[in-house]
Amino acid sequence: MADSNDVFDVIVIGAGPVGLTVAARAVRGGLTAVVVEDRLAGGECEYYACIPSKALLWPMELAAEVDRMPGLQLRGPIDTAAVLARRDDTVSHRDDGHEVNLIEKLPATFVRGRGRLAGPLRAEVSTDGGDRRVLRARHAVVLATGSIPAVPDVPGLRQAGPWTNREATSVQQVPKRLVVLGAGPVACEMAQALHSLGAEETTMLVRGERLLTHAEPFAGELVARSFRETGIDVRFGRSAVRVERTAPDGPVTVHTDDGARIDADEILVGTGRRPAIDDIGLDTIGLRADGPITVDASMRATAVPDGWLYAVGDVNGRNLLTHMGKYQGRVCGDVIAARARGGPEDAPGLRDTADDRGAPQVVFTEPQVSTVGRTEARARADGFTVRTAEYDIGEVAGALVRGVGYGGWAKLVVDEDRRVLLGATFVASDMADMLHSATIAVNAEVPLDQLWHAVPPFPTVSEVWLRLLEQCGL
Amino acid sequence: MADSNDVFDVIVIGAGPVGLTVAARAVRGGLTAVVVEDRLAGGECEYYACIPSKALLWPMELAAEVDRMPGLQLRGPIDTAAVLARRDDTVSHRDDGHEVNLIEKLPATFVRGRGRLAGPLRAEVSTDGGDRRVLRARHAVVLATGSIPAVPDVPGLRQAGPWTNREATSVQQVPKRLVVLGAGPVACEMAQALHSLGAEETTMLVRGERLLTHAEPFAGELVARSFRETGIDVRFGRSAVRVERTAPDGPVTVHTDDGARIDADEILVGTGRRPAIDDIGLDTIGLRADGPITVDASMRATAVPDGWLYAVGDVNGRNLLTHMGKYQGRVCGDVIAARARGGPEDAPGLRDTADDRGAPQVVFTEPQVSTVGRTEARARADGFTVRTAEYDIGEVAGALVRGVGYGGWAKLVVDEDRRVLLGATFVASDMADMLHSATIAVNAEVPLDQLWHAVPPFPTVSEVWLRLLEQCGL
Repeated sequence: MADSNDVFDVIVIGAGPVGLTVAARAVRGGLTAVVVEDRLAGGECEYYACIPSKALLWPMELAAEVDRMPGLQLRGPIDTAAVLARRDDTVSHRDDGHEVNLIEKLPATFVRGRGRLAGPLRAEVSTDGGDRRVLRARHAVVLATGSIPAVPDVPGLRQAGPWTNREATSVQQVPKRLVVLGAGPVACEMAQALHSLGAEETTMLVRGERLLTHAEPFAGELVARSFRETGIDVRFGRSAVRVERTAPDGPVTVHTDDGARIDADEILVGTGRRPAIDDIGLDTIGLRADGPITVDASMRATAVPDGWLYAVGDVNGRNLLTHMGKYQGRVCGDVIAARARGGPEDAPGLRDTADDRGAPQVVFTEPQVSTVGRTEARARADGFTVRTAEYDIGEVAGALVRGVGYGGWAKLVVDEDRRVLLGATFVASDMADMLHSATIAVNAEVPLDQLWHAVPPFPTVSEVWLRLLEQCGL
Repeated sequence: MADSNDVFDVIVIGAGPVGLTVAARAVRGGLTAVVVEDRLAGGECEYYACIPSKALLWPMELAAEVDRMPGLQLRGPIDTAAVLARRDDTVSHRDDGHEVNLIEKLPATFVRGRGRLAGPLRAEVSTDGGDRRVLRARHAVVLATGSIPAVPDVPGLRQAGPWTNREATSVQQVPKRLVVLGAGPVACEMAQALHSLGAEETTMLVRGERLLTHAEPFAGELVARSFRETGIDVRFGRSAVRVERTAPDGPVTVHTDDGARIDADEILVGTGRRPAIDDIGLDTIGLRADGPITVDASMRATAVPDGWLYAVGDVNGRNLLTHMGKYQGRVCGDVIAARARGGPEDAPGLRDTADDRGAPQVVFTEPQVSTVGRTEARARADGFTVRTAEYDIGEVAGALVRGVGYGGWAKLVVDEDRRVLLGATFVASDMADMLHSATIAVNAEVPLDQLWHAVPPFPTVSEVWLRLLEQCGL
C-alpha cells in the first residue's frame, strides 16, 4: 500500500497554465489533486513564451502607434535595456514561488520533480536529489507536459546551438545579426521583436511562399509587407541547407538552398513544436511515444482502457495555444470531478467544442493578426456553403481617429446555409481584444440576423462589423 | 401638381450620419430619396462631436500608454498645434463635398437648405438665397434633425458666450483656464482633452456626486480619480450660480453655490442636449414642439395618422448616440422600403431591439469607459433577478504585458433566471473595441453556458471574461 499522503483523486503531470487549470477545476469540484513539475511552475508560457514575448513586443506596437499620431514623438529608439528589464519583471525573474503558492492555496499539493506514468493510475516522481516517490490516483492521471520546439534536420544546425523561443524570449544581449527559420507565430513574433530591439540585420528564411500559413493569405501578406517596410529581409521559398558555427561564441553561417550565405550572430528556429512525450512513462501503460496523445472531447485518452488517463494542452496536439490548453483544462478538471461524483455529463462545460469550431489566435506582430474559426479555404474543404465578406479597416471612422495611416483588413467566413459565422480574421494594430466579439459569434453560432442588432460604438474600429455584415446581405 | 423633380419616395430632413443612413438603406431597398440639410452634410458628429473629439483625445490616450511602458519615452508634452492640425484633417477642414458626393452616388438627391414639414408627406426647403422649394414624398418623411446643446439657466451664462461641444471640438487656441459645467460624456471628454492640450487650470463643476451617471458608479469614480491625478479640479455637489464676462474677449468669472469664484478664459457647457425640433414645421401637422418625437420600434412617429412620418436619431430621444441613430436609420430605411413594397415586416432587421436592451457607449476618457446594456441598478429596477460579477482588469495577464500599472475594472450584470447577460462595463485604457464582445452577448442574449466556450486568447485583456464568468458559477 502506498502511504496515504501519496494518494490523490487526481495526479496532474505538468504545472504549466494548463495543468494548473485542471488542478484548480478538479479541486473546485471537490477533489484532491497533486501537481508534479520538474521545471518552473507556471510553465513555458509564463517564463519562455506568451508572457515574455508580449513584453518584448508591446513597446514596438506602441512605438508604431506613436509614429502614426501627429502631436506625439518618441525621444529616440526603444530603450532595449529597459524593455529587457521589464521583461524580467513580467516573468517574476523566473521565481515560481507565486505559482507554487497559488497551487497550495487551491488547495492542492505541489511536488517538484520529474513525473512519469508508472502503470495505471500511478505516477512516479524523481527529484533532482535522486529521490523517487510513487503517487497513486483514485480517479485520474492528467498529462499536461506541453511541447518542445522541433528543430529541423539541417546539417550543422543542432551543433550551432540554435535559439528557440526559450533563448529568444530570455535574450540578454540582442544579436545584431539574426537569421530566423520559420514562418509561424513564434518566428514572426520573435523576428520582429528582436529586430525592434536591435537586431538590425534580421533575415527570415521561409520554406513556403507566405507567413502565418494558419491564417487567411492576406494576413501573412500584410505582415510580410510590414516586415519589409521596417527592414526585415524576408526570403520566401528559401531554406537553410547547412549551418556552421566554429567557435561557441563566434558567428554562425547559414547556407541557403539558392547558394547564398548569411553571416549572423544567432540563428533562431521557429519551425513548430512537438508534444513533450519523451520519457513520461507511456511505455508503462503500453502506449508508444510517437505523437500527440489522442483524446476525446472530454480530454480522455482514447487508447487507454478504463478511461483514467487524460491529456490536455499541447501534448494532445489539438491546438498548441495556451488559452486552448487552459480551456481543455477547464473541461478536463470539470469532467473528472463530474465522473468522480458519478454525476451526469450533459452539462455544457463538460465537452470541448471550441477546438473544433476553430481556436482564436492572436499573433502579436505589428500589425497584429487575430483569427478565430475557419479560414475560407478550411470552410470550403469542410464542405460548407461559404460566403465571405472583406473590408479595409482603414476605411472606418474609428481608424481615422487612431492616427495617420492606421489600417488593416478584415474578413468574415459565413456558413450561408445556416447564416452563422464560421470564421473571422482581423489584421490591424492593437486589435487583439476586438477578436473576442468574433469568438463569441463563432462559438455560440449567433445568427447573422442577430449580429446585425449588435451595434458597434461610433467611432471605433469595431464598426468594421457593420460593413462586413452589409456584405453578407444585411 | 408639384414638378416631378420634387416628388420622391422618401424625404429625409437632416444629413447627419443618421439621415444619410436612412437614405442609403431606402435607396438600397429600391426607393428614391432626397436629403435636405442647411448646414454641413455629415452632421454634428462628423464636424463638431464624435470625430474631432476623438482626434483630440487619442493623443492623450496614447501618451498615457507610453507613460506606462518602460523603454519608450515621449520627447515632450503633446504638440497641441500638431493635434489641432490633425483634427482639422479628420473633419476634412469642414468641407462636406465628400459627403454630398456619397449621397449623390447612392444615388439620392441632396438639397441644401433649411427643411421644414409642410403638411402630410410634404416638406418645404428654404435656401440661404431666399428661394423656397416644396418637396413631396410618396411614402415617408423622415426627421433626422438631431439635437442641440441644452444651456442651463444660470444668470449671465448665455451672455458669457459659453462653449458647447461645437466650440470645444473646433478649438483653435486652447484656453489656459477652463471651467466645465457637467458630468456626462461631453463634459468629461472635452475637459480631459483640453486639459491634455494646454488647459492647465481645468475646473469641473458637477451638480451631483459623480461623473458619468449613465454608467455603473465605479466608472465615474475611476475617471474622477484619473482626472484628479492629472490635475483636473473636479468639484462635486457644486454648481454655477452666476457667470460674468464683461468684455467679449476678456476672461469669464464663475460664481459657485458655495460662494467661490473661479476666473477662467472660457466656460464649457456639457450638461445635456435637447432634440432639434424648433422651426421644423411640426405645427403644420398638428404636433407640438415640446420634446422628443415619440416613435415605435419601426421609427414611425406614434402621434401621426397614416404613419408617414418617421423620426430617427437624437430627435426621437431614444439614445443620443451616433451609432444608435445610425442603427435606427438602418431599421427606418429598411422599414420604409418594406412597407413601400407592401412586403412582410417580420424580417428581424425591421424593428429596433437594441435601444431597449441597452445601447453600447464608449466615453473616450483615459481610462475609457465602455458600457452596454443595463447597469445593475437599472436591471434591478426593471425587476430582473440580478447576479453580478466584477474583476480587477489589472489582474489578468493581458494587462501585465501592456505596461506598468495598466489596469481597470470590469463588471457583468446577469439575468440569473435566464442565465443571459443584461449589461457589461469595462473601464480601462484602449478597450473601446473589446466592448463589442459584450454588445453581441447582450443583444443576441447568448447563454452564459455558451459564452464559456468562447475562449479569450492569452495573453489579452479579454481574458477578464473568464474571471467574470467564473464568478457567475461557471
